[in-house]
Order: sequence, then C-alpha cells, then structure tokens
Amino acid sequence: MPDAHPLQPLAHAIRFLSIDAIVKAGEGHQGVPLGMAEIATALYTRHLKFNPTDPGWWDRDRVVLSNGHGSMLLYSLLHLTGYPDFPIGEIQRFRELGSVCEGHPERPHGPPNGIEVTTGPLGQGIANALGMAVAEAYLNARFGDGLVNHRTWAFVGDGCLQEGVGQEMISLAGHLQLGKLTLLWDDNRITDDGPTSLSISEDVAQRFRVAGWHVEEVDGHDLDAVSRALDAARADPRPSMLACRCVIGKGLPRVQGQRGGHSARLYEQDAQEARALLGWPHGPFELPAELQRAWREAGQRSQAEHRAWLERLAALPPAERAEFERVMRGELPAGWQQVLHGYRQRARSEAAPPSGIFLSAEINDLLAPLLPERMVGCADLEAPTSHKRSLRAFTASDRSGAYVHCGVREHVMGAMANGMAAHGGIVPLSVTYLAFADYERPAMRMAALMGLPVKFVFSHDSIGIGKNGPTHQPVEILASLRAMPNMWVMRPADAVEAAECWELALAHRDGPVSLVFARQALPLVRHDDPDADNRSARGGYVMHEAACGPRRVTLLATGSEVALAVSARDTLERMGVGTAVVSLPCWELFDQQPEAYRQQVLGDGVRVGVEAAGRFGWDAYLGARGGFVGMKGFGASGPADALYKLFGITPEAVVAEAQRLLAR
Amino acid sequence: MPDAHPLQPLAHAIRFLSIDAIVKAGEGHQGVPLGMAEIATALYTRHLKFNPTDPGWWDRDRVVLSNGHGSMLLYSLLHLTGYPDFPIGEIQRFRELGSVCEGHPERPHGPPNGIEVTTGPLGQGIANALGMAVAEAYLNARFGDGLVNHRTWAFVGDGCLQEGVGQEMISLAGHLQLGKLTLLWDDNRITDDGPTSLSISEDVAQRFRVAGWHVEEVDGHDLDAVSRALDAARADPRPSMLACRCVIGKGLPRVQGQRGGHSARLYEQDAQEARALLGWPHGPFELPAELQRAWREAGQRSQAEHRAWLERLAALPPAERAEFERVMRGELPAGWQQVLHGYRQRARSEAAPPSGIFLSAEINDLLAPLLPERMVGCADLEAPTSHKRSLRAFTASDRSGAYVHCGVREHVMGAMANGMAAHGGIVPLSVTYLAFADYERPAMRMAALMGLPVKFVFSHDSIGIGKNGPTHQPVEILASLRAMPNMWVMRPADAVEAAECWELALAHRDGPVSLVFARQALPLVRHDDPDADNRSARGGYVMHEAACGPRRVTLLATGSEVALAVSARDTLERMGVGTAVVSLPCWELFDQQPEAYRQQVLGDGVRVGVEAAGRFGWDAYLGARGGFVGMKGFGASGPADALYKLFGITPEAVVAEAQRLLAR
Repeated sequence: MPDAHPLQPLAHAIRFLSIDAIVKAGEGHQGVPLGMAEIATALYTRHLKFNPTDPGWWDRDRVVLSNGHGSMLLYSLLHLTGYPDFPIGEIQRFRELGSVCEGHPERPHGPPNGIEVTTGPLGQGIANALGMAVAEAYLNARFGDGLVNHRTWAFVGDGCLQEGVGQEMISLAGHLQLGKLTLLWDDNRITDDGPTSLSISEDVAQRFRVAGWHVEEVDGHDLDAVSRALDAARADPRPSMLACRCVIGKGLPRVQGQRGGHSARLYEQDAQEARALLGWPHGPFELPAELQRAWREAGQRSQAEHRAWLERLAALPPAERAEFERVMRGELPAGWQQVLHGYRQRARSEAAPPSGIFLSAEINDLLAPLLPERMVGCADLEAPTSHKRSLRAFTASDRSGAYVHCGVREHVMGAMANGMAAHGGIVPLSVTYLAFADYERPAMRMAALMGLPVKFVFSHDSIGIGKNGPTHQPVEILASLRAMPNMWVMRPADAVEAAECWELALAHRDGPVSLVFARQALPLVRHDDPDADNRSARGGYVMHEAACGPRRVTLLATGSEVALAVSARDTLERMGVGTAVVSLPCWELFDQQPEAYRQQVLGDGVRVGVEAAGRFGWDAYLGARGGFVGMKGFGASGPADALYKLFGITPEAVVAEAQRLLAR
Repeated sequence: MPDAHPLQPLAHAIRFLSIDAIVKAGEGHQGVPLGMAEIATALYTRHLKFNPTDPGWWDRDRVVLSNGHGSMLLYSLLHLTGYPDFPIGEIQRFRELGSVCEGHPERPHGPPNGIEVTTGPLGQGIANALGMAVAEAYLNARFGDGLVNHRTWAFVGDGCLQEGVGQEMISLAGHLQLGKLTLLWDDNRITDDGPTSLSISEDVAQRFRVAGWHVEEVDGHDLDAVSRALDAARADPRPSMLACRCVIGKGLPRVQGQRGGHSARLYEQDAQEARALLGWPHGPFELPAELQRAWREAGQRSQAEHRAWLERLAALPPAERAEFERVMRGELPAGWQQVLHGYRQRARSEAAPPSGIFLSAEINDLLAPLLPERMVGCADLEAPTSHKRSLRAFTASDRSGAYVHCGVREHVMGAMANGMAAHGGIVPLSVTYLAFADYERPAMRMAALMGLPVKFVFSHDSIGIGKNGPTHQPVEILASLRAMPNMWVMRPADAVEAAECWELALAHRDGPVSLVFARQALPLVRHDDPDADNRSARGGYVMHEAACGPRRVTLLATGSEVALAVSARDTLERMGVGTAVVSLPCWELFDQQPEAYRQQVLGDGVRVGVEAAGRFGWDAYLGARGGFVGMKGFGASGPADALYKLFGITPEAVVAEAQRLLAR
C-alpha cells in the first residue's frame, strides 16, 4: 500500500497504536480502528471543531463512537491530538484495571476528557447523537450562532443500524431534518458472525434515503473522497450518512476483510506482518516526531475558532452571559423552588384531586417559563400523559419548540434524552407509560451507568389503569427499576409528594430519576405544614404516626397505595391498634439514611408493605415477620376498582394482614 | 355510503358490533375495527384458511392483531364467524372483568380459542407473526405441504411500524423472504397524538420495498381491491405488505379521519349518527339473520380443506403420524432425559471444565438429533455463545436449517421466539449475552404473560466477562428477571446443574425460562451420586451440609459463585464453623417448595448470600441477620479475577462476612 496521500501516515499512526495496544492487552476489537483510520483522519484533520486543551468547550463538535467496541479508534485519536487524559502510558494500559482506556469508551464521571458518551450496547450511540443534535438545534435557536453552532459526528457499524433503536433513530432524525448530524458508517460487510449477508439483504444506504437522509457512498480508505463527502455533509441541510466502504481490520494480512478482522486475537506476529504490509518501520507504540507534530497540529486546528468563541462569550451583556452559562452548567435558575413550594401550598385547597400523572404535568407546566432548557420527549402519548401543555413542538422548521413528538419509539426517545443530557444545556424529560419502560430500559441503564441527569417520567403505573388489561399493567417494573444501580425511582403519593419529588429530581445532577405516577386520581394524604421541609428528601418517612397508643403496626406504602394504607390505619386505630403509615417515595434515598433513622421509621412492630405490584425487593424493609399486600402475578382487564378487589389490595386486606401478624 | 358491494354489509356488521360494544363499555379503540372492517371482511370471506369449530387446527392460517388496541376487530370476527368462545354475550361484556373480550386480546392459557397471541405493546405482534412464519416454513420443510402449509396474516398500525422491534422485523423478514407472511397495514395517517406527520416523514411502503418486501398499495375500503391485493400477496414469493389507505374510525361522523377516531370516548349519539350515515337500521348488537348466515358461511369456507387435512393425517403411516403429533403437541421424545443423565455422569470425569455457556451448548448439541423441533435464534454472537454447532442456518433458500442468524436484533429475536412457541411445533431458544437481555425484555414479558415455553439463553452473566467493561457486565439483570412473574430464572453452578436445569426447562411447558450462564469456566461443585434425582428441581438445596459440627452458617449462592462459596465453606469448616453451601439455581422453583423444606435448606444460623450481582431481592432469603457478598453498583473494565477482588467477591470476603455476623 503506497502512502500516496500526505495524510496516509496519520491514518497508519491510528492503525499501529491500535494494533500495539490490542496485542499488548491480549484482546480488543481491531476491526473498527483499522477499518476507519482514514475516515477518522479525514474528520479530525480537516473538519472537526475541537480543542483538546478544553475538552468541555461548549461549542465543540460532538463525536460519538457508536460502535464502541472499536474503542481504540477513539483512544488513538484522543491521544494523537493531545487530550491530556490520554498519554501514551494510558494507551499502553488499554483494558487494564483503572486505565482510562477501558474495554469500551466510558464517559467520565468527572470533568470532560474527550469521551462524550459511554458506548458498547449497539445502537445507543447514534441515538445519543440524535439527542445531541436536537440539543444543539434547540440551543442554537435560543442563543444564536455566535454561542451554539456545532456539529455531531458518529462512527457507526452494521450492528447499530440493525438494532431497532438505530432504526428508530434513522426514522426520527430524518423526520426532524437535523442537518448538523452526520453518521460515518463503517460499511465493512462483516459482523461477529461473518458476512452481513447472513442476516441482512437490504440496501442500507437506500433505507436512509427513504427516511429523508442525505447519503454519500465513498471508499472509506480514500482520504480525499471521504473529506469531499464530509464537505457535502456539511453543505447539505439534511442529516447525512456517509456510507464508507471499508475493509475490516485493514492492514492485518491474516484477518483483514474477514470475520476474524472483527476481534480475533492478535499476536506479535500479526503486528509484524502489518508493519511489513504497510511499510511501517517503527516499533511498538513508537511514532516519529513529524507524525506526532502533524497530529498535534490537527489538534490545534480549531484554536482560532475557540478563541473567537471565548471572545464572543466575554463580550456578551452580563445577564445574557450569566444565563447562557447557567444553562450550560446545568444550574437551576433562582426561584424554581418557590414555584414548587407554592404548588405544595395550593395542593391543600384543591377540591378534586387530579390524576397522578396530571400532578406531574401541572408542576412541569408551572416551571416551564423558568426552565426553558427543559425539553420533553414523549412516545405518542401526549394527551394521556399531558406534559406538552404550553410547549410547542420541536420540528424541522421550528427549532424553538421544546416538545419532541417521538412517535411510537420509546427506545430512541430514552437514548435521545441521554444524548441531550450528555450534550449539556438541556434538562431532558422522557415520558411514556410505565408498562413501556421496558422498551427504553437499555437507554435507562446507560443513563444510570453514565450518571446522566435524565428524568424518565412514567404514568399509568399499576393495575389502576384498569380495562386495558395486563399488557398495560406494570406489576414488576417498579422492582426492575429499583434493581438498577444509580437509578432513583420515585413514586409520589399525592400532590405534595409530587412537588417534593420533582424538587429532588431537578436538583439531582449525577444520575437519572424515574418518576412514576398513577393514572388514577391521587387524593391528598399529606396534611402537615406546607412550609415544612421536603420530607420526601429522606426517601421514606412517617407520614402518620400511631395515635391511639404506642406503635404496634407500621404500614409501608408508595404512590396510590398510601391512601389505601391511611384508610387501613384509620380502621386499626379505631380498633385500638397503634398504627403508623410510612410513605416510601424513593427507596434509594431512604437506603442512604442513617441506620437509626431507618429503624425508627420502620418501627419494631408488625410491618405490612402495600403496593399494587409484586413483593420482589420489599423484604429488605419488611423483615422476617413482615406481611405484604400487593400483586402475585400479572393483572387483568377490568375496571380499576374491581381489579383492586380481585387482587385483594384493599384497606380491609391490609387490616386483616396486620391482624394476622399481630396474632402470631 | 351506498352498499354497492355485496360484502359491504358484512363489513358494517363488524363496525356496528364494535361501536355498540365500545359504547357499552364506555371506552375502547374504535379506530382499527372501523378503519379495517373491509380489509378484515375481504380476508375472512375469501382468503383465510380457518375453522372456528377447531380453533387449534394445526394447519390453520395464523392471524395476529398487532395493533391490539383494536381488539374489537378481532372479537367481532371471532364472534361473527362462529368461534364458540365468542358468543354475543361476551361481546356485550367487552372490557368487563372476566370477559374473554378483554381490553387487548389475550391468548388463552387453556385450549385455543382463536386469539393466537396477546398483543398490545406495539410491534410485538408483527414480530410474533415473523416467528410463526419461520415456524411454518421450517415445519413445512420437514413434514411437507400435506401437513403444514399455511399463511400468517397480521393487522398492523403505524405504531407497530415505528417501533424498533417492528423495524427489525421488516428487515429480518425481508432477508428471510418469508413468502407466506402478509402484513395488512392500516395506513390511516393518524396516531394517538394526531397526524402521523408529527413524527414520521418517510414513505413506509418504500421502506418495505428496500427490505425486499412485495408491497401493494390499495384503498382499504375497496373490498375487491383489497381482495385482489391479497391474491397478489399469495402469489408473490416475497413477504407481502398491503398498504391499505384507510379512514380511521370510518363511519363515525364526529371523529372519523381525525385524532379522535383513535379512541375518543363514544356515546349513544355517535352510534346513532353512524347508523344514519351508513344506513344501518338495526338496533344495538342486532344482526339480521341473512348477515349472520353470510358470516357463518364465511366461517365454514375451509371446511373441505380441514377435512382433507384430517384425512391426510389419518392416512399417514403410524410412526410418521405419531412423530408429527408429538412435535405439534410439544411433547418431548423418548430418551431425551437419558441424554441429560448421561451428560451428568460424564461431567464427573471432565478434566478441564468448559466455559459456563459452553456447557449449555454441549447439552443442546447432544440433544439436537433427538429434538429436531428445537430452533435457535442468536443475535450475532454465534462464536461466543456456541449454540449453533451441528445446526445449519435457516435461510431464504434452505428452510430445513434450525439456526436463525438474527443479526444484531435482540428484540425481534425474542418476539420471534414467542411467535414460534405460540405457533406450536417448535421449541425455540433465543440466545445472547445477559447484558443485552434488556433489549429483548419487552418480548420476554410477553412470553411470561402468555405462558409460552420459550428458552431465553444468556451467557456472559456477570463481571466475570472481564475487560469489556460495565456496559457488558450485568449486575441488576438477574434481579430484574426474577422480578417478572411467571419467568423461571436459572443460573446453574456447574455441568451437573446445567444438565438438571436444561431438563427442567425443557419439561416446563407453561412459561418461559431464562437460562443464565457464565462466560468463565464453571468447575464441578456437585460430587454426589450422578444417578440421584434432579436436585435443581426444588430450586434450591443443600449442596454441602455442615460437616465439622452443627450448622452455624449457611452460604447461599448461584452460578459461578457457588464454587466461591464452596471454597469459603472449606475455610470456615477448617476453622471449626459448621457451614453449609446452598445452591439456589432457580428461585421461582424454590419459592414453590413447602415452608418446612425451605426453612430446613435456609437453616437457622447465620446466612450469607453470594452472587456477583446486586443484593436486590436477596433479602427474602437472608432474613434480618443476613449478610451478602456481591455488587453494590456497576462493574468496571479489567481482568475478571481483578474485578472479583476489586469488588470484594472472594472466599475471604465471604468468610469475613460470616464471622462478622457470628460475632454479633
């Protein structure tokens, strides 16, 4: 392979860094870094707006490695262009415990380091990229070209495009016509199983065109052709997909273009053969100074733009600048808590309590003027979830709308929200029924793993939805979400708790929250001082202490079942049994409280959990003698009241369970 | 609307049954039954092979209502054509508790009644239909046209086609060229939010063509046009999509063609207006005798075919007939358990234990000759999961292969398996990494809800996968699956338990099983009599009783952590602490055991759970004094051994935890 092109050695630098790191690690995925070396070189040397000395520059282009198994491509680029967190020593520790060069790219929990999002599960990355492009378009509409005007680029493999979430992304991005979004497809015709013809026959480029994308088909190893295609992408008002015909693992004589090119184990011998094939005389991890310099220069290509941007920022009127910085830092504006406190106070005088999900909708609508950075995605359930209200739609022709009609596409909705949060400057909400949480769960897991402040809002949270039947009645989903590390699951009992939980959720910056609301009305159960502290902040608390005598029974409940527990308590108290009601709106917060507090809340007496869901997970609070009133299996189709009776989730059943345990 | 067409009144019969039932129920979704009445009439009167007097006829065409919210369409058809479970009384009880006419169609847990699959969560139904078509093609290849030769038809709305799983289905069905599969698309340009233009711009018909489908675009209210298109679908070797231009809620003056056509509440006034508009003089739930007769005749259209099929079946050589009936009944062949017993015995003499997932692969490969009805779908992980082995690929040109290369499409893989199981005659396996279980979870939930005997096989089940990092390391997924009703979750500890669990899983006919295997090697930990009973059948059992004295400590573990518990026990016993190891390969089975057995297994002493996963759910077994050694959050990228040490999941940590609890 003659190095005809002046940039070719830069691409080879990626290749050999990757080969050397993978050989040293003993495993890795050479397919992507070797196949996409020229594409990445063209992008980083001629098109990308970035500054390695300021990885968190708000107006940088965003780069996503959606085919995250090819992580050495990204690590090589970050090292070569001079990102401080990626010195050669880290490259040499690829896949070792504690190295920043992990098996798959992991977004840092600390300051930005050049890795924009954690990728690995296929399809997530390009859906994140969609979210970034939506965030950019929205912020651009608000703050103008001078402050926000950047592109989103995503490397993508066949797997991402086969995944349903990837297909949802193609459809939605085409619909929204996000012209600053470009996918760089590694069209290498090989997956882990072998030729792509094992599992796909369609013309992928054509599929993009049908969805309204601009498509360029190029030789992925022709640096100039790729660069011209990148020019075309930048010029086109549509989202662009560059179908780059590539040879997987290119440069490795034994495996290139074959199934083994993907991730077959590489040995020193392979590295030597590659050096011979490509005329690369340098030793492992060695890079001649002129190539180092050339890559460092590429890393400085946007310095003037960066400087000019900083100057524009500095020249802004102070209030304007402060607002932009507030939004981009993800800080909340003055006065937001007052809105919520006001809501709590008014809740006491509401005549008829609204549907649970409408409480959330009301709260959000009140906050809308204060929080223009809040964007809402919803999966074709605008009316029943009601989180649009005063918002306009974000569309191809109106980028100032904050409500994205996602269509019946929950998965990309969730992953898009992750991309918005990772981009910054947006407080993303993702809204659907709780029964469909499973559809976006892979994205929720990524939010939890990355610690992204996404608000996943769910309505229709139990058999309380009634006649639509068991497909639409979550019974296990609360438990499945509580099982997820770093995911707060909040299920408010009434308007006061709804406001409290939203206050906590908005203030929570290092992880996602699932806010779960009933479809049915939630009567007020909190009658304490409306100026009191946010009691939900401890995750669980004694809402009503035993009154008729010392506490003998503790009823633990969440959401719509708190009212039911309150009713059962009334009966037990009338019977002379001292009974407390504990509300547990957020288990994760409760688990963080000191042991003494938790024991005091849970009490020494008989404990009965009440939730219109399965018992799984409840035993942690119920103890050895605990009882539970809830679901034992899936739901049924019928009116909500009839279902609560059918499944024995009633005040009477709670009373009976408490009596049974007291008698033991 | 003049009733120019002789079949038009039959379509109106569907409309008014649906309107009357929805008005009576006070809620429902009129959009589909009114919009698709002519399409359904054309299908059922001229094309469908079915016999209402034998709803379980193995060679019937399969009909799926993928847009399940339009359930009254299906109930109307089942009633009108004479399915015994759908008398008019049940139609009148639409959405009432206990009615077979539930909010969404629910596949019966008892004998077939005409509802093939439970639908509601969008996209699942068409993916089920794909599985049914694969099952038909495979069984047709084995048993021939005389026994298996039927079609699969699915009603489908916009939502199903927006969902990622729907897009995966389009791509895979086009690739596999399932010519007997036909989708009937309700192209009404309205979703719950309003016009489809809110969320989609692409030419859906063209998207199908790109994927290799035959597409017909027709007026969905023109009975002859639809019928001709159905003829074309039957004649074409490709899967067919009929894009039927429809008016949502057609016939209801107030809402037809509009957003409210989907599911706005209908009143008596609406019913009257529809009667006036369509010239329908009959009262609520009234159908003139000649229309009743016409629909009943439609229900008898395949009687001759049914009879001829029964005759062909009866004429088969006895052994051939018995084998066909065995397969279609889902019964296992003679000798299958001997294969598994043999495997258990040989496991004792294995020199080096293989990877956990390879145990499952070996077992399945041994069973392959006995169980030709076993089909395996795998999401582009053939090599690392190894469940292909002696199987050939199922392809467009070879229908006798039992292995479906699903591509990187976990969701349709799972839903396809559900369709195969619902079809009958197939024992479906669905294979991927446990980290990707979330991608197919919505399908797994449907399997659990329907009670379908699908085997969901997972490998790479913990941090034991090592360097690929936290995206690929499940820590919460065991808990999330255990939280699901009617889902067995099995995590075998070694070769013996692997064979035992597979024995139980294959015998389990009324629900799905998740079989979860480690990537790393599983050394033999069971050394008891290989001829002993299947000890995993009780879900949990004392694998090693305390030996040095009375039991003071019980170590409870699953899968790869059982060996770790055994090692900790050795230490504790050497220290004079009587310690038992309890293996809990299947919590669901253990929970079904008598209380006395469970208490005996769990013991009175100190209990320590050990699992390389989160604690969520474990408290049910650990009791108030219980300890746990496992994960507290997400994993990390590094060698497996280093990760077990990093997260403190070691024999030493187990010993220390037991000592800490003993000292309390």
